[in-house]
Amino acid sequence: MLNNLNNKKIPTKIYLSEEEMPKAWMNIRAAMKEKHEPFLNPATLQPCTAEELSKVFCSDVVEQELDQENLFIPIPQEIREFYKMYRPSPLTRAYFLEKLLDTPAEIYYKFEGNNTSGSHKLNSAVAQAYYAKLEGLKSVTTETGAGQWGTALAMACAFFGLDLTVYMVKVSYQQKPFRREVMRTYGAEVIPSPSNTTDVGRKILAEFPETGGSLGCAISEAVEKAVKTPDCRYLLGSVLDHVVLHQSVIGLESKIAMDKYGIRPDVVIGCAGGGSNLGGLIAPFMVDKLNGKNDIDFIAVEPASCPSLTRGKYAYDFCDTGKTTPLARMYTLGSGFMPSPNHAGGLRYHGMSPIVSKLYHDGYMRAVSVEQTEVFKAAEQFARVEGTLPAPESAHAIKVAIDEALKCKKTGEKKVILFGLTGTGYFDMTAYGAYNDGKMSDYIPTDEDLERGFASLPDIPQNKGI
Amino acid sequence: MLNNLNNKKIPTKIYLSEEEMPKAWMNIRAAMKEKHEPFLNPATLQPCTAEELSKVFCSDVVEQELDQENLFIPIPQEIREFYKMYRPSPLTRAYFLEKLLDTPAEIYYKFEGNNTSGSHKLNSAVAQAYYAKLEGLKSVTTETGAGQWGTALAMACAFFGLDLTVYMVKVSYQQKPFRREVMRTYGAEVIPSPSNTTDVGRKILAEFPETGGSLGCAISEAVEKAVKTPDCRYLLGSVLDHVVLHQSVIGLESKIAMDKYGIRPDVVIGCAGGGSNLGGLIAPFMVDKLNGKNDIDFIAVEPASCPSLTRGKYAYDFCDTGKTTPLARMYTLGSGFMPSPNHAGGLRYHGMSPIVSKLYHDGYMRAVSVEQTEVFKAAEQFARVEGTLPAPESAHAIKVAIDEALKCKKTGEKKVILFGLTGTGYFDMTAYGAYNDGKMSDYIPTDEDLERGFASLPDIPQNKGI
Repeated sequence: MLNNLNNKKIPTKIYLSEEEMPKAWMNIRAAMKEKHEPFLNPATLQPCTAEELSKVFCSDVVEQELDQENLFIPIPQEIREFYKMYRPSPLTRAYFLEKLLDTPAEIYYKFEGNNTSGSHKLNSAVAQAYYAKLEGLKSVTTETGAGQWGTALAMACAFFGLDLTVYMVKVSYQQKPFRREVMRTYGAEVIPSPSNTTDVGRKILAEFPETGGSLGCAISEAVEKAVKTPDCRYLLGSVLDHVVLHQSVIGLESKIAMDKYGIRPDVVIGCAGGGSNLGGLIAPFMVDKLNGKNDIDFIAVEPASCPSLTRGKYAYDFCDTGKTTPLARMYTLGSGFMPSPNHAGGLRYHGMSPIVSKLYHDGYMRAVSVEQTEVFKAAEQFARVEGTLPAPESAHAIKVAIDEALKCKKTGEKKVILFGLTGTGYFDMTAYGAYNDGKMSDYIPTDEDLERGFASLPDIPQNKGI
Repeated sequence: MLNNLNNKKIPTKIYLSEEEMPKAWMNIRAAMKEKHEPFLNPATLQPCTAEELSKVFCSDVVEQELDQENLFIPIPQEIREFYKMYRPSPLTRAYFLEKLLDTPAEIYYKFEGNNTSGSHKLNSAVAQAYYAKLEGLKSVTTETGAGQWGTALAMACAFFGLDLTVYMVKVSYQQKPFRREVMRTYGAEVIPSPSNTTDVGRKILAEFPETGGSLGCAISEAVEKAVKTPDCRYLLGSVLDHVVLHQSVIGLESKIAMDKYGIRPDVVIGCAGGGSNLGGLIAPFMVDKLNGKNDIDFIAVEPASCPSLTRGKYAYDFCDTGKTTPLARMYTLGSGFMPSPNHAGGLRYHGMSPIVSKLYHDGYMRAVSVEQTEVFKAAEQFARVEGTLPAPESAHAIKVAIDEALKCKKTGEKKVILFGLTGTGYFDMTAYGAYNDGKMSDYIPTDEDLERGFASLPDIPQNKGI
């Protein structure tokens, strides 16, 4: 492609000035000719109303969740001030990696790990905490598994003076005491889930006293706590449209930085768990594609152990294992699907952002799945030449970026590759240790495993024939 | 002071462009009218020759160690390329902290934690690894306690293709498995010390089979291994003059960034363990003070538990507990001094950089000591408003920066305060956990504790009357 029109030397890192930072988020849905299906109330099978959603979520956030018209939604001044604390994040030219691979491709990555939460999660955490404060709430609840979202929200709540209760999956609470202490240092109350602080927790504990908990159970506890506490709401860190909206700051900053140097990506790659970082990274590039202005190859990368896009069904499903949330039409393995417990990454969610699912379903992007050992190999390779030890999640994108660059080496194509380096692996050293010791698992679900997951899909008319 | 002459709005973060980054390190000694005393060979009590030092250290590094004439020493191109991987580091205006403290002071900090080693240590690690490679060495050794230096050196050695053996204090090896795994991911061999890979290790193990090791013992093992291995040298991460030289990149970048906006600091604050980050941060400002161009208040902050400047003696002492190194004239508690085991920070070294010691001795800077609980209180306060969870070491500087800003609040003075935020606390969560649980120790050594340490000082003519 015609790149670097200005013929400027491209620095290793491109930082924007504060004036160049985005003043509005970008709402991909406004550019989609066909919108994704609405949330359904599982009791009535009718689209959820704003009123229904507002019982759980903050009202400003619900408004954003339902907005399909406005392409740009202004970022409030207070959030922009907070963003300045850790943004702009650098857009980095991977000169060292290019040299190592001996590829004619240009590789860029947008690095979101330069903050204490260690990931992009803070982009939405600060927005959600701000709206909660604006609404006059006193406290909020959430759940966390690996701990990135819980940490990000703890930081945001400390800043805005909101009490936060984090239900942390018990096995993570025990195995990741450091994550827990970061959240506590930021003033959050961290409760191992299941706990005796909720009805659902007590019920599960009575039945399975020795359980290590699950994300589904932690969500159910956090929602119950929010609904039963005055002036309290529940906040969610991925999947939903408003989270993808807040994450668009990643893609917007990337595009502004690339435009400054006349760089136009041919391939954009992101790891896909719930889909919010991917949706945010691709936002402005995808909007241009939807408007016929580019033909970028968008690639969602998921673990072979939890292949919702590549092997899942595009069906209505619950967002949580406990089946308490509204139904979303998305690529899903079924809320009852259990990925291999050996898998180290945070990309273990059974479903996928409805926006990403729809774009994939309509052919605007493709998806590939990768196995764990090769992901950690790519992570190690990257860390040694580019310096940053990546989060296992981010390493999925690195793996495919390397694959694409090596294809260019064969064909001689000078493609421009952009990928999202969503975070650092500093709290994932147990997984790196397993890799260093040659003890990674590459278990891939069998067709029978998948069938068991699909059996948990709701048996509703909307899912007939899917 | 006359600040912000250009009347530009000062952004939260000031980044330099690649062209603005320093092309030479700054050698403070060249500006010192009176130099510090030379290293002495403990056997002959004569100044160490370059030849003697070259048996342990790389020859380029020895040349830098002994250079007292050249104010600027060019940074080789290869090192400058590596620096671009994680530099420039941001100079940050602590707007949020200023607001919290309601102070008329302007507070700035230079943040060195945005790299996987989590600290400034990488600045010297890359330089030392480069020179080792240039000399044709195959391997290098070092020791590590908390793990920051070991991690930094592992990153640098992976990049330049050098084998690295790290002797890690056994108790840290066991208590900090995550640090160990980061080093292993970067290809380093990490050996718990004492080990059976060296004579000194075997001897200690025979005598104390259950010992958790010490930094002194790990240094002795690393030096022995280097001396006995062909094409191998030992690298050290602090204290020595060449390390301070490499760390001058911190101060040089800070000054360039401040000059761009017409900012002139009144107070410059750094934490002081071995003294290399402090020496690096103050370098260009101190050179101006030595030349009569400013009257900046330089403050070295040390833990009350290990008060080498505030309660130590300015004497000749060994750099290691094992008494195998040359003798340096420095502020020291005696190489036999043992700080309270409860202290969490990495500022546990018995001595202090000879450069910093001399500047302090000659009245160019002052020193204060602070207690651990108040340091963690400052760390928590800082983390909540400025986002970054600081390393316990860095939090010593934060504590005193806050104190200085609060003094300004009382007096109404609009001082400009600069401090060094040397690193992040992501691998120090055990210490934060102790703080969160109210279980920090504030033990301060008694005069008797200090006397026991001083008793270990070498009984040589040069130490008479000190």
